[in-house]
Formats: sequence, C-alpha cells, structure tokens
Amino acid sequence: MNTSTLIAPPALVQRAEKQDTQAIQALDSAHFIHPFTDHGDLATRGARVITHADGIYVWDSEGNKILDGMSGLWCVNAGYGRKELADAAYQQLMTLPFYNSFFQTTNVPAVQLAAKLAALAPKVGDRSFNHVFFSSSGSESNDTNVRMARRYWDLLGQSQRKVIISRHNAYHGSTMAGASLGGMSGMHAQGDLPIPNITHIDQPYYFENARGGESKADFGLRAARWLEEKILEIGPEKVAAFIAEPVQGAGGVIIPPETYWPEIQRIVDQYGILLICDEVICAFGRLGHWFAYEKFGIKPDLVTFAKGVTSGYIPLGGVMVGNRVAEVLIDKGGEFNHGYTYSGHPVACAVGLANLNLMERENLPGRVRTETGPYLATQFEALKDHPLVGDAETCGFVAGLVLVKDKANKQMFDPDRAVGMICRGHCFRNGLIMRAVGDRMIIAPPLSMTVAQIDEMMGLIRRCLDATLADVRDQGLLA
Amino acid sequence: MNTSTLIAPPALVQRAEKQDTQAIQALDSAHFIHPFTDHGDLATRGARVITHADGIYVWDSEGNKILDGMSGLWCVNAGYGRKELADAAYQQLMTLPFYNSFFQTTNVPAVQLAAKLAALAPKVGDRSFNHVFFSSSGSESNDTNVRMARRYWDLLGQSQRKVIISRHNAYHGSTMAGASLGGMSGMHAQGDLPIPNITHIDQPYYFENARGGESKADFGLRAARWLEEKILEIGPEKVAAFIAEPVQGAGGVIIPPETYWPEIQRIVDQYGILLICDEVICAFGRLGHWFAYEKFGIKPDLVTFAKGVTSGYIPLGGVMVGNRVAEVLIDKGGEFNHGYTYSGHPVACAVGLANLNLMERENLPGRVRTETGPYLATQFEALKDHPLVGDAETCGFVAGLVLVKDKANKQMFDPDRAVGMICRGHCFRNGLIMRAVGDRMIIAPPLSMTVAQIDEMMGLIRRCLDATLADVRDQGLLA
Ligand SMILES: Cc1ncc(COP(=O)(O)O)c(C=O)c1O
Ligand SMILES: Cc1ncc(COP(=O)(O)O)c(C=O)c1O
Repeated sequence: MNTSTLIAPPALVQRAEKQDTQAIQALDSAHFIHPFTDHGDLATRGARVITHADGIYVWDSEGNKILDGMSGLWCVNAGYGRKELADAAYQQLMTLPFYNSFFQTTNVPAVQLAAKLAALAPKVGDRSFNHVFFSSSGSESNDTNVRMARRYWDLLGQSQRKVIISRHNAYHGSTMAGASLGGMSGMHAQGDLPIPNITHIDQPYYFENARGGESKADFGLRAARWLEEKILEIGPEKVAAFIAEPVQGAGGVIIPPETYWPEIQRIVDQYGILLICDEVICAFGRLGHWFAYEKFGIKPDLVTFAKGVTSGYIPLGGVMVGNRVAEVLIDKGGEFNHGYTYSGHPVACAVGLANLNLMERENLPGRVRTETGPYLATQFEALKDHPLVGDAETCGFVAGLVLVKDKANKQMFDPDRAVGMICRGHCFRNGLIMRAVGDRMIIAPPLSMTVAQIDEMMGLIRRCLDATLADVRDQGLLA
Repeated sequence: MNTSTLIAPPALVQRAEKQDTQAIQALDSAHFIHPFTDHGDLATRGARVITHADGIYVWDSEGNKILDGMSGLWCVNAGYGRKELADAAYQQLMTLPFYNSFFQTTNVPAVQLAAKLAALAPKVGDRSFNHVFFSSSGSESNDTNVRMARRYWDLLGQSQRKVIISRHNAYHGSTMAGASLGGMSGMHAQGDLPIPNITHIDQPYYFENARGGESKADFGLRAARWLEEKILEIGPEKVAAFIAEPVQGAGGVIIPPETYWPEIQRIVDQYGILLICDEVICAFGRLGHWFAYEKFGIKPDLVTFAKGVTSGYIPLGGVMVGNRVAEVLIDKGGEFNHGYTYSGHPVACAVGLANLNLMERENLPGRVRTETGPYLATQFEALKDHPLVGDAETCGFVAGLVLVKDKANKQMFDPDRAVGMICRGHCFRNGLIMRAVGDRMIIAPPLSMTVAQIDEMMGLIRRCLDATLADVRDQGLLA
C-alpha cells in the first residue's frame, strides 16, 4: 500500500529581505481583484505585500516581521515553513499531480486521507463518520451540504423538506449558496440573495443580545429555542436541516453559552431534521479537538471542513458524512449527480494527510486542549482589567474581545468611529495581525504557538490596546 | 521583484509498479465518496487505482500503462511529470505556503499571475482584460460570474436585469449556481434546481438538431437566434447575461457551426447584455489559442477559467474581467462583498505562473493551432470511413465522434444499449482513456502530445472501434 518514493532533501530556501514594493503594488492594483475589497481605496493606499513566513511569523516586502495572530485566515494550524508538507506535495506532484475520481477511478492519497479523517472523527451516540466527500473550499462544501441534504430527503420520499435554517451573522462562504446560508447582510444585498428556501434565526451572542440580568445559561436556552420557533413557523415537515458554526468565526468569534448546543440537539432530534456543523474554522485542533462537535457533545449529520485540513498549504475542503445520511445516499441512492473536477485531488489530499500526521505527532489538538488553550484563556481573562475591554473570552485557540466606550455599562462606541479599525491599525504597525469585526478584536493563532509566544502576543495586544486607548481619549470618545 | 530563492535539484521519484489494489479498493469504498458516482455499483466492481503518470500516460495499481486521451479531466494540458511545476510549488510552499488577500494584503505570485494572464488575454475590439479574480475551481468562478454580472447591473441602476441565459446540455459546475447554469437535467432533478432567474436555450448541435437538408451555416444562425427569441420572450431589460462554453465539453464536444458565434455576438451587442465565455476547458491552448474567444472572434465581458491554468497540478480557477465590467465594478463599485479564502492562493498561483511559462516556452498553443491540431483533424476526418462512425470532428485538441447504428441515415442506437459504454470498456482494456457521453466518444489529450503519439492514439481508437463493432454485430444491433 506504500508507494516507495524517494526525494532528495531540498536545500533551504533563501529569501530576498526587501522587495520592490511599489512595483508589486502597481501591478497588484492594475490586475488583481482581491476578495472583499474596495479597489478604489486599495489603489490609493497600495497593498501590503506578504513575501515569506516561518512558524507563527510573516514578513512583508519592507522587511517587517509580523506575528500572525490569524493563522493566515484561520487556516495555517500547523504554522508556516513546515518542510514535511512541502515534501509531501513535491513527491505527489512528481508521482501523480492529478487524476480525476469520476468514472470509477481513484487515487491513493484521496483514499488514505478519507480513511484518516474517518479514523479521527469521533463517534457520538449512534452517529459515526465513515464517509468523506472532497472539494477545494468551504464554500463548495456547503453547496454540497445543501444538495446532499435535499437529496437525502428526496430519497426518503420527503421532497417537501427543502428549507435550510441558518443564523444571522453566520459565515458559510461566497458561492451563491454559501452567501445565502451565511447571514451577512452586506452579501445578501449584492446579487439577488439568498436563494430560495434558506432562512435565518438570530445568533447566540450574549454580550449583545441578552436581556438585562439574564444569565448566560438562560440566554443560551432562549437563543436555541429561536430554532424551535422557526421550525414551528415554517412547519417541521418542510425543514431539511439546520446549519451552524460551533463557534462563529468571521462573525466575530461568537462563543455560545454552554446551554446552547445541547438544546439545539434536543430540537433537531425532536423534529428529525438534519444538523450540519460548519467546522471550516473549528475543526483540526482549533478548539482543542480534531472536530469541534466532540467538544460540544453534539451529533451532526454532516460536517463541513476546509482550511486547517491542509493548514492552508493547498486548497482542500470537504464534508464528513454521518452514517444516517450515508446509509441513504451512498448505500442506496444510485448516482448523486454532484462533484468537482478537483474532488479528491491527489496533491491536496497528500498534503492533507501529511498535515494531519504532523498535527497528530506534535499533539497540537491536545496541546490546545490542555496546555496552550487554557493558558491563552487566563491571559484573555486578565485583559478584562483593561479600561477599553468590555468582554474577553476564548475557546481553544480562538479568542475575541470587545472594545467599549463605557465599561461599567457595557456601552459600545458609535460604529461610525470605527474604533476596531483604529486598533487594527495599531496592531499592524506594532507587528501583530489581529482582525477587527466591528469593535470586536479577534485572534486565531497557529496551534503550534508556544506559551512563550503567547506571552509575546499578549504583550503586543496590550500595547495596541493602550495605543488605541490613547487615541480614543484624544478624540474624546470615552464615556 | 524577483525572490532570490534556491532549491536543490530533487532526485528522481521512484515508484512501486504494483500496489495492493484490493486493500485500496476496500478502503476506497468504505470511505471515499466519489464525484458523480453510483457507490453501490462502484463497491461491487472496485475502483481502478491510478498510481502514477508521466507525459501522456498514466499507470494503474496493476501496472497497466494507459494513454490518457482526456488529460486527467480536460486539465493536464502540459502533460504529467513536469518537474518545473513541482519545483515552483516546492519553492513557494517553503517561502509562503499561504497568505490571504483580504484586508489590503497581497502576495507576489498572485500579482504576477494576474499580470501574466492579462498579458496573454488578447484584446478584441474595444474589450481588454486587465483584471483577474481568482478562485479554486470552475464552479466557484461561475458563482463569481453570476454575482458579478448582477452587481454590475445594480451599480448601473438596472437591478431588474437579473436573468442569466444559458444552454441545455451545458456544463458550468456543481455548486448550486454552477449546476443551475449548467443544462444537465440529471443535476436539476436533484436538490431544487435551478435557482431563480436562470433559464436555458437549446444547444447548437448540428448532428442532432439540424433540419433535414439544412446547411451547417443556416443551422448555426438559427441556433444563435434562439437566444434572441429568449431575450425577447423575457424582455431585454430583464436580461443580465448570456453564458456559454465556446465549444461544449462535458456535453459531448459540441462544436458550433462557424456562423453561430458571430450571430451570438450581434445579439448580445444589440440588446446590451453581458457575454460570459466559460473557458474552463477551452482556454490555455486547448483550441490552439491562449483564450478560445480569440479563435471565434468574440468579445466576452467575463471569461471563466480553471483546469489548464495550472495543468490541474494544484486547484486554481478564476475570472478574467473585461474593461466594460471592470470600469464599473472595480473602479467605482466600492466593496464587492465576494471572495474565497483561497482567492489568490500563493502556491496555486506560483504553479499557474510556472505552467503558463512552460506552455509559452514550448509553444503548446501554437503547436495545437498549426501542427498537432490540424494533424489530429485529418486523422479524425479519416475515421468517418469507419462503419460505426456517423460523424467525427475536432476543434484544436478536443474531438468527438458519434457511434451510429445506420451510417447512411445517421440513425442512433437505442440509448438503453449503452454502446458508448461498450466502446469505453474496450478503450480501458486496450490502454486508452476515452470518454463516452451517450454514444459520443470524446477526447481531449495533453497538448504536449506529439504527432507520433497522435498516431499511437489513433491506432488505439481504431482498434477499440473495431472491437465495439464486433460486439454490436454479435448482439445484432446494427441496422
Ligand atoms: C465557517 C466557514 N464556512 C465556510 C467558509 C468558506 O470557506 P472558503 O472561503 O474556503 O470558501 C469560511 C471561510 O472563512 C468559514 O469560516
Ligand atoms: C466548462 C466548464 N465549466 C465549469 C466546470 C466546473 O469546474 P470545476 O469542476 O472545477 O468546478 C467544468 C468542469 O468540467 C467545465 O467543463
């Protein structure tokens, strides 16, 4: 079963420390349409050119070293500069750079990765995950989920079950279906979205949506029951599935109260609807487990993955298919007319396999669960002392804090002041990548980060909070 | 602007000639959900395991050498085993394996590839293609097209222009939007498709759809005017765009009559609607040009690409944005709320760049245009003598032939007889990959194929046609 391959140990890559920034910026704005970008604005500023990376750091073309608190974009779980991932890609590129998996053909890395993922996915209750569908992104995988969920109900003779319930402020991708599932109003406003039979309930965001005096536990139950209300409003016999991120990422690291997920599970079970966990961010150690559903003790039917599966080194995504769906779809469904050219791409899968082996060997999920994650949590807890910080919380290796005008009364700044962007600017200038979602500042560092590096990051975060505080004081924005 | 990088020349990869086929097949059917596959059927037969490849050949785990007449899946344009593509990937993986292009950051390979694509895309009339949006697949790119076309009309204050017209039997991908744009009825039947405001006209398939005695030229005009009829039926002020493959690929290599595209151009111009060419198959030398629109003299506004841009070595796709759209969307549109994590993936783009440089240096598009393509055309022309062949035609390096029951009357076999599948089986057994779309047998070989290799392939094709002929004679299926 092993391909006996040999590859010479490649020499260390050397990098130019300084590149011709202006020339690249000019070409950039002349030709490259960036995702989610205002190009008029970009052209006047010029893009920051990221040229190389190692461990938890990236460097720009001006030679600045920056601690990447966002793992690229929630994906470089194993950190940068991992030679064994490059080696795995090289070896596969020289052996079989591509072959399709249509027409009853297969390739070894795709099979091995599917088997590995099935082995890593914990069984919960009566639910096991033996089957894997591959794509190249989170978006494509969520399109697969919609098509698969509806196909499942069709095969069971319940074709009227079409509605997928999602949540406001969720992020599920940028295809037509992905943007529809997502609850980002700015995306819905562009291009005739959402597509039919997708509807949204509110998010379980305690800081913003709890009633005065309501406990976290009570709020969690109340928020979960919005799902039940929606199901009853639509008619349970018309609902195909509920989709949600275990912890909302792009929405601003919204960590639900502990009571939320068990109640959601009760509701989907009671009405028999499918549960889809979008773990594009949460899987592969991000929350201290191979899959986040395990942490929350939930039993999804379908699990979306992408990003961390290859640590972002090569595009890869997919869906873990639970036995409930697999038994209908795979075992008796005939041909499911769905798939992508690159479903099971040998190079992407070889890198995925190498990445999971690396993360397993270095016990990255376990370290996040028992060592670095708890340490990060105490550090974030301590941030609550800061005059600007209204709340701060972590879950494994995602963390968020809220910048507030008035700590005592949890009062937010006027959104027009864009205080989050002021803070993000200070981070950039101080060599830290931290993302702003409104006035929530969020991080999701590489899982390879050490305790000492957490200290370094926290030092930078404090420095940037202080600088932001000075700015908002100067501008008279504090309460 | 150059990163001064050094990489040791890697040793030749050695391969096991024989792998444990049964073990892989068992794991395969236990875990890997293939695209467009009946898994009950697959489990009983066991998948063919493709293990390695070189040039125009692939090998399976039983040691069989197979001439890949389909370039993987219309994508391995440069052929297998291209060390410089593996080197480019390796170097980029060690330098910067990933960084996002959101938040006003960029990376050098994405910028360079965008600039290269803009340089390769010929200007037609008043249309130039200076801007590139990246994705990881053809499907994602077509989702981008729909969102972009509608955004364009919104920005011009014509939000009522939402309808995208496509064609029956077109293939545009497997996302919800991709499958909706596509005209595959089997896909529409699964999962509540098409999504709204997408409609289809008939394909320009002369062999099947021409009237008795109608010339190719007349049929081409008539087929193009189905677009005009549809526009008038819907109301021109409601139509956003027309999307089409220059030559339909997955539909069975449907090559339109010469009169078709100029008439389509007249119609889209007359009604002011956008023209989207889906060149996922047709670009990058497949039809003898960098982009197929040049061959047909058409002026698209948006051009979908994928597959050949990296020769399939790493997943990459995108959209070439013409100046008409770019001026509105990029220059004055504000933020377009669309994009993928892997838009502008540095490794994918580095491999894309290396691939285009290789194809340019070896003049692969030019060879297909003036040397190997014309040679393939004469060989296919000669196939028309074969008793089973009702028609045979090529366009650059795609080719199709029709298996018929009655040559004189162009009568097709009963589809239930699956004569195409019989022929495909003979191909497999004789070491040739040729695809069957109903009873159309199609090929799209690597562009690196030599004249001698074309002869080898044609010999195999003839042998398989003869074997198929013997079978259908035995079964009494001939007229
Ligand atoms: C939870 C979640 N789902 C889906 C996606 C979409 O993934 P992609 O950008 O790879 O299409 C993302 C991307 O950030 C995500 O965070
Ligand atoms: C013309 C065309 N468009 C789009 C696609 C979809 O590409 P992908 O499978 O990469 O999503 C294909 C795939 O074969 C295609 O041939």
